Amino acid sequence: MSAPLGLLLLLLGLPGLLGGRPRYEPTWGSLDARPLPAWFDEAKFGVFIHWGVFSVPSFGSEWFWWYWQKEKREPYVKFMEANYPPGFSYEDFGPLFTAEFFDPNQWADILKASGAKYVVLTSKHHEGFTLWGSKYSWNWNAVDMGPKRDLVAELATSVRNRTDLRFGLYHSLFEWFNPLFCEDATNVFKTRKFPTSKSLPELYEIVTKYQPEIVWSDGDGNAPDTYWNSTGFLAWLYNDSPVRDTVVTNDRWGLGSICKHGGFYTCSDRYNPGHLLPHKWENCMTIDRWSWGYRRNAKLDDYFTIEELVKQLAETVSCGGNLLMNIGPTHDGRIAVIFEERLRQMGAWLKVNGEAIYRTKPWRAQNDTVTPDVWYTFRPTEGKVNAIFLNWPISGALELGEPQAKLGETQVKLVGYKEPLKWIALGEKGMMIALPQLTLKQLPCQWGWTLQLTDVK
Amino acid sequence: MSAPLGLLLLLLGLPGLLGGRPRYEPTWGSLDARPLPAWFDEAKFGVFIHWGVFSVPSFGSEWFWWYWQKEKREPYVKFMEANYPPGFSYEDFGPLFTAEFFDPNQWADILKASGAKYVVLTSKHHEGFTLWGSKYSWNWNAVDMGPKRDLVAELATSVRNRTDLRFGLYHSLFEWFNPLFCEDATNVFKTRKFPTSKSLPELYEIVTKYQPEIVWSDGDGNAPDTYWNSTGFLAWLYNDSPVRDTVVTNDRWGLGSICKHGGFYTCSDRYNPGHLLPHKWENCMTIDRWSWGYRRNAKLDDYFTIEELVKQLAETVSCGGNLLMNIGPTHDGRIAVIFEERLRQMGAWLKVNGEAIYRTKPWRAQNDTVTPDVWYTFRPTEGKVNAIFLNWPISGALELGEPQAKLGETQVKLVGYKEPLKWIALGEKGMMIALPQLTLKQLPCQWGWTLQLTDVK
Amino acid sequence: MSAPLGLLLLLLGLPGLLGGRPRYEPTWGSLDARPLPAWFDEAKFGVFIHWGVFSVPSFGSEWFWWYWQKEKREPYVKFMEANYPPGFSYEDFGPLFTAEFFDPNQWADILKASGAKYVVLTSKHHEGFTLWGSKYSWNWNAVDMGPKRDLVAELATSVRNRTDLRFGLYHSLFEWFNPLFCEDATNVFKTRKFPTSKSLPELYEIVTKYQPEIVWSDGDGNAPDTYWNSTGFLAWLYNDSPVRDTVVTNDRWGLGSICKHGGFYTCSDRYNPGHLLPHKWENCMTIDRWSWGYRRNAKLDDYFTIEELVKQLAETVSCGGNLLMNIGPTHDGRIAVIFEERLRQMGAWLKVNGEAIYRTKPWRAQNDTVTPDVWYTFRPTEGKVNAIFLNWPISGALELGEPQAKLGETQVKLVGYKEPLKWIALGEKGMMIALPQLTLKQLPCQWGWTLQLTDVK
Amino acid sequence: MSAPLGLLLLLLGLPGLLGGRPRYEPTWGSLDARPLPAWFDEAKFGVFIHWGVFSVPSFGSEWFWWYWQKEKREPYVKFMEANYPPGFSYEDFGPLFTAEFFDPNQWADILKASGAKYVVLTSKHHEGFTLWGSKYSWNWNAVDMGPKRDLVAELATSVRNRTDLRFGLYHSLFEWFNPLFCEDATNVFKTRKFPTSKSLPELYEIVTKYQPEIVWSDGDGNAPDTYWNSTGFLAWLYNDSPVRDTVVTNDRWGLGSICKHGGFYTCSDRYNPGHLLPHKWENCMTIDRWSWGYRRNAKLDDYFTIEELVKQLAETVSCGGNLLMNIGPTHDGRIAVIFEERLRQMGAWLKVNGEAIYRTKPWRAQNDTVTPDVWYTFRPTEGKVNAIFLNWPISGALELGEPQAKLGETQVKLVGYKEPLKWIALGEKGMMIALPQLTLKQLPCQWGWTLQLTDVK
Repeated sequence: MSAPLGLLLLLLGLPGLLGGRPRYEPTWGSLDARPLPAWFDEAKFGVFIHWGVFSVPSFGSEWFWWYWQKEKREPYVKFMEANYPPGFSYEDFGPLFTAEFFDPNQWADILKASGAKYVVLTSKHHEGFTLWGSKYSWNWNAVDMGPKRDLVAELATSVRNRTDLRFGLYHSLFEWFNPLFCEDATNVFKTRKFPTSKSLPELYEIVTKYQPEIVWSDGDGNAPDTYWNSTGFLAWLYNDSPVRDTVVTNDRWGLGSICKHGGFYTCSDRYNPGHLLPHKWENCMTIDRWSWGYRRNAKLDDYFTIEELVKQLAETVSCGGNLLMNIGPTHDGRIAVIFEERLRQMGAWLKVNGEAIYRTKPWRAQNDTVTPDVWYTFRPTEGKVNAIFLNWPISGALELGEPQAKLGETQVKLVGYKEPLKWIALGEKGMMIALPQLTLKQLPCQWGWTLQLTDVK
Repeated sequence: MSAPLGLLLLLLGLPGLLGGRPRYEPTWGSLDARPLPAWFDEAKFGVFIHWGVFSVPSFGSEWFWWYWQKEKREPYVKFMEANYPPGFSYEDFGPLFTAEFFDPNQWADILKASGAKYVVLTSKHHEGFTLWGSKYSWNWNAVDMGPKRDLVAELATSVRNRTDLRFGLYHSLFEWFNPLFCEDATNVFKTRKFPTSKSLPELYEIVTKYQPEIVWSDGDGNAPDTYWNSTGFLAWLYNDSPVRDTVVTNDRWGLGSICKHGGFYTCSDRYNPGHLLPHKWENCMTIDRWSWGYRRNAKLDDYFTIEELVKQLAETVSCGGNLLMNIGPTHDGRIAVIFEERLRQMGAWLKVNGEAIYRTKPWRAQNDTVTPDVWYTFRPTEGKVNAIFLNWPISGALELGEPQAKLGETQVKLVGYKEPLKWIALGEKGMMIALPQLTLKQLPCQWGWTLQLTDVK
Repeated sequence: MSAPLGLLLLLLGLPGLLGGRPRYEPTWGSLDARPLPAWFDEAKFGVFIHWGVFSVPSFGSEWFWWYWQKEKREPYVKFMEANYPPGFSYEDFGPLFTAEFFDPNQWADILKASGAKYVVLTSKHHEGFTLWGSKYSWNWNAVDMGPKRDLVAELATSVRNRTDLRFGLYHSLFEWFNPLFCEDATNVFKTRKFPTSKSLPELYEIVTKYQPEIVWSDGDGNAPDTYWNSTGFLAWLYNDSPVRDTVVTNDRWGLGSICKHGGFYTCSDRYNPGHLLPHKWENCMTIDRWSWGYRRNAKLDDYFTIEELVKQLAETVSCGGNLLMNIGPTHDGRIAVIFEERLRQMGAWLKVNGEAIYRTKPWRAQNDTVTPDVWYTFRPTEGKVNAIFLNWPISGALELGEPQAKLGETQVKLVGYKEPLKWIALGEKGMMIALPQLTLKQLPCQWGWTLQLTDVK
Repeated sequence: MSAPLGLLLLLLGLPGLLGGRPRYEPTWGSLDARPLPAWFDEAKFGVFIHWGVFSVPSFGSEWFWWYWQKEKREPYVKFMEANYPPGFSYEDFGPLFTAEFFDPNQWADILKASGAKYVVLTSKHHEGFTLWGSKYSWNWNAVDMGPKRDLVAELATSVRNRTDLRFGLYHSLFEWFNPLFCEDATNVFKTRKFPTSKSLPELYEIVTKYQPEIVWSDGDGNAPDTYWNSTGFLAWLYNDSPVRDTVVTNDRWGLGSICKHGGFYTCSDRYNPGHLLPHKWENCMTIDRWSWGYRRNAKLDDYFTIEELVKQLAETVSCGGNLLMNIGPTHDGRIAVIFEERLRQMGAWLKVNGEAIYRTKPWRAQNDTVTPDVWYTFRPTEGKVNAIFLNWPISGALELGEPQAKLGETQVKLVGYKEPLKWIALGEKGMMIALPQLTLKQLPCQWGWTLQLTDVK
């Protein structure tokens, strides 16, 4: 084939003939076959941000509206009775979502400092309030009401201005109290007023406008994917959208799709199976144990310690997952200092131990059989096995049951410490590694350490 | 035709064959041919109510939003700068529309006392805020935000509980800042996102739900009726809606329709041509000379006096029009006392002079050729000519150039005064009537009087 | 007496010897002997203004705070429960007293147009909130909180810029909930913390700063004048204050002083005895029958008609009193249009009939013995008797039982009508006056007329 | 002496003759001679709480009002312009001080857990707003406005319900903008309206009502103690107040008194001289480096780390001071989680190392001459020297230049570690101590350790 013809075909938009990108059909069979863009698995760690009108009461949970008005849970009902006039509605919180302290560059600095490789922002939660000026959510969005700013655009820009930090958007399909959704639900989803006039136009809008590299779908409202036309949207996303080459999505696209269809699997909130899975997955969890949105009534105890968070990360990555760790900013646009501390602590840990996390693959074993709280990852490029151990043995000797050393070949290094470590082989029973004696300040970090094993089996 | 066949046809929904009601086509030709239900012309006098979020700033005009943010008129911009924080938006007024004093029965009592035969409430003005809980205006309506009450339903019920008082709804087709409308406008109305997802569903909703006997359309936004599908809606309204038998509409259904198509003509705000028109029309005007919505900055001078209002009514009815006199309630649900006074004054006048207004027809002359400010109406049932005169002649003798008396037959009565009046015929030049000498308290009323002439030409 | 001696005495502060002004002792005996400055009796008609934080709820009464929290009256308690969050306090209304529409020149124009000769503003009501920036009421005054303006100063200036309009200040001695007053009250007024630290310093402050020509005292809180040191204050006011020459005061200076001590007597709210009193008095009453402060829940019926107000004025002045007619402005600084209307109506009446009011004295009879609703005043300068009659007799002839005409001398005029009236003497039974036949527009006014009788006994 | 005579003398109030407590004169000579109640020096560590209306803007500093309106500092002016309507005043923040999350028991639990032995709350800061319902601060206190709760009483009760935790009150003498203070200041403090009507009555009120065991005075406003009548107040406090036996005060009682008169010396904010002082002193400092009140714009970096705080405590106590560590709660009544973390971290440290802090005395040396960051305290009861060392030596051997060991007698213990430590004497050069090799979890704590030396010189 002569060059001019190739050029012609390119101009005709038929690159497929030249070995170009395939087109996906709007069927799960076709869509599920799409390979996950490589960056996602390599990234391992992202930060989730739950922000919205629920950040105004910032009481109990980001499900405040539902718990208060639908379930009528007592603490929520009492909170409202005690602090607001009768008839105060959730919508009345809208103008109080002020975000006056929101500085997207400062946020991005903190996010970057956490070691995260991607950020996922709730563009719209189940409350239906959009953090951008959606045309389809007039007067119930952050540009018309409250902040009067395009929060999505501002954060997207700041995040992308940091190297090696990608931007994704969470999007709730359903909306608890949207009357069009409620009407469809009453009709057992035989009508589709809501997806056609609200959720689908908005999905296209955010992808086109903000080009998120993650579309983190949530909230099927017990409706099947056919109601949502999820396969139609995904086919467009993969074939024709501006992010078709790099976008990843999750698995929450309609009743029954979770853990089964889509991109990476999330399976359930705080999913952390503890063993290897055949499909790429993500553990989304939150620093505040009890809420995704900011809660003013949270105590220190309610926040995971950095030791617990490092453990989550090690476990998750060892088993092939990504960790998506959530924070909830305040109604006035701040990342509470306790969140900033946890994020920076994680960043400090990753600065030392990042080699054991980023771009790794699961090893043949996920955790050690002899010593608890030892988690393995593998760097195929260098053939190194990483053993992340969360407790420093009192004896100073760490016994590992899984790796089998090869005399004269195997090398053991403590990440962040210069000298190679001594070890002895225990045959099939693994190996025993002598850790150096280090004072608090000499320790590479304080909440988990990595041994790098070269040439082990 | 045997009975069973008739029954069968009825069951088949084909009453037309039996001389039943005609069906209208969605064309102006067909729709314009529909006879106006008789009640409307007989009613003569209605009260218009402009109420909405604009009642919160209640400054300048119900066009506050437009003048402030689109035209950036100085008084509006300054008012906002002086009294609200930067970034305060029109939407932020929503929660301040509280209506806590709104007592629909008290309103209905005042409306009834005004002598009005119908009431027209702004179900939705150009701001797009619906006074009922529209499914298509989620979170920008009076049930979700502000009053948390279905203002349309409450007033409808109270109004209908008064005898001889009908309920109508004003509805703005376009919405100044609705992004879907703006998008359509940008597309020169070649797209129709807005009417299909907002204005049409809402029109059907209010008719079905509240069964207004007037659909008072407004605000074409420079779009043709084809964009609004006005003929389609009207055909449904006339053929199939629950109010098909009694509903009247006006003429504001799309660019160019005003004063040309639809039901009664409104032609322009405050339309008062001063002469007879071949088509039924309505003069909608407002007690506050400068605004339809409540204005806190209105002074006494800005309100029409009762003398001026009575004059408006007499002129309008004489020329075949109805008068729709507007009030603007406050954000907290009150009819300001000055409005109440004007309404009750009008009611007091109509209590005496109602015979010269209700159920009358224009006479062959509208006003007198000799004495200014004399307006005629005609009661065909009794063959009486009413001469409403707005100035009591100093001489005590009222000269009328139009009616020609018949000696021995013609009788003249002052409405509200028992004795027949003396008069002399002036041949072709009309007649001269001797008014009784009455003190202030003896006068039937203080702002215009009615002479009833029997057997005049 | 040689000049130098006079000079010496002046310097010694003994001008009394030279016929100078006397000094008053702080005893009722001395103070009560002070002649009332003449302007007050000549003025006859003033406007009272009740404005304060109570104008924010503007519900029920200016006694809102007391009725709600002390008496716990049901409508007040329910109003608060229905519209405010639990724990909302009266003090929380402070920042909502905004006065953004307050235009003192516009107020003064309306006040001037009412025909009033003086204005009395509540500088501080029982709530303790001062409309000026009192040093002794820090953070509970209109300069620190709410309007952030010196409302007293602004209105004083505007009022004084109108000719023939004087400025006075109402001042409540006690404050319902001031803890220092409550403590004194608990101590049966044996301690005097409150008057020494609050009420007295403030009284001196307002007199010195704003030089009111009326000090309208109110609210003794059941404490005797000795507790308030009223005689001490009045002695200063009469001897040394900047307004010592022209100031008038009323009689509310401590338990038992009302109707007994001080300047003019007020005796009780809405005091209108219907007969002549030996001491100058004032009838303070309010256009809203039920409240001095603005009430949003007032209806048209609750406002006195202009006919009723004119009657009040005629009665009051005939019996030697002044009328102080009250209005209650709104929290945002407006005089509601209905108040403006009543004020302008009164002004229209006074423009015609002012001769029968201003600078008059009571006549020997106050009202007529034969015809009801006829009230007399007397102009000593011209020796004219004014007969204000509130009903125009149907017969056209007004019979007066009191004045006895002198044939050939007595003249009768209808104020506002050029021609002298005819009359016949009825001997000791008075006289019969023939009124002219006038149409509505020819009448000098619509709510009461004045006959001026010259040379009657 | 017979019993009746003793009784008589008691009744005469002369217990001094019986060896009773002395009476103090209102002179510095007499007052300064009062011995400081022993509990205070033994306590060593307290928590300071700055809470007030400044917690509402919670921007920049608790000096917000002053910086904004007096100094017109740009960030404050801009913050107000950007977020509030024109004319918004500091007083308008009052109703927004809501404290709805304030749970005094939860606070007291956290305070107790910090290891503090006393708590000092700002009963009133320079803004003049009292956290209790002061009679002398009507409508500018937490009972009338905002929380509608007696915050002082609630916290006092909860604090006292914890064992070994005392309650003290901060009180600002002057008030920035109190007009009575400003007037006195203008009069160069020759008038004393403010202290007599406000600050002194309030001081007596809080002592009588809440019986604080610390009266932490502040803010002389450049007025001498004679203006404030500080000696008069202190004489009453020491002689006759309900807390006369246990109360301690500081040294801020008027211009020139600081670091010179009163109880313990504070000298300046964040006073930490680094050497022994002859007079008991206190280092008051704050966890947020830049503000005493809560600041929403504080970042993680702005908070002292626990390492820095432990260092402050060790330095301060070694030099004879107490540490008063400040937190700033939020306007809605919360201790931000980052503060809770620091407090609990400090408590964790004190749980282990409390022996080296509480009830200690300064040793002959304050810090070590050879090894930096080693601070000494002394327990006289057991004759033990505590060496608090902030860095764990890499070598595992700690050289101390000050203590001279006695062979066979001296014992060295690491607090929180069971085994006695080995050491070698270096003669006059002190001693060298062998630290045990401990993993992170074995360390008694992570931010400073205590060696207890028995029988050293």
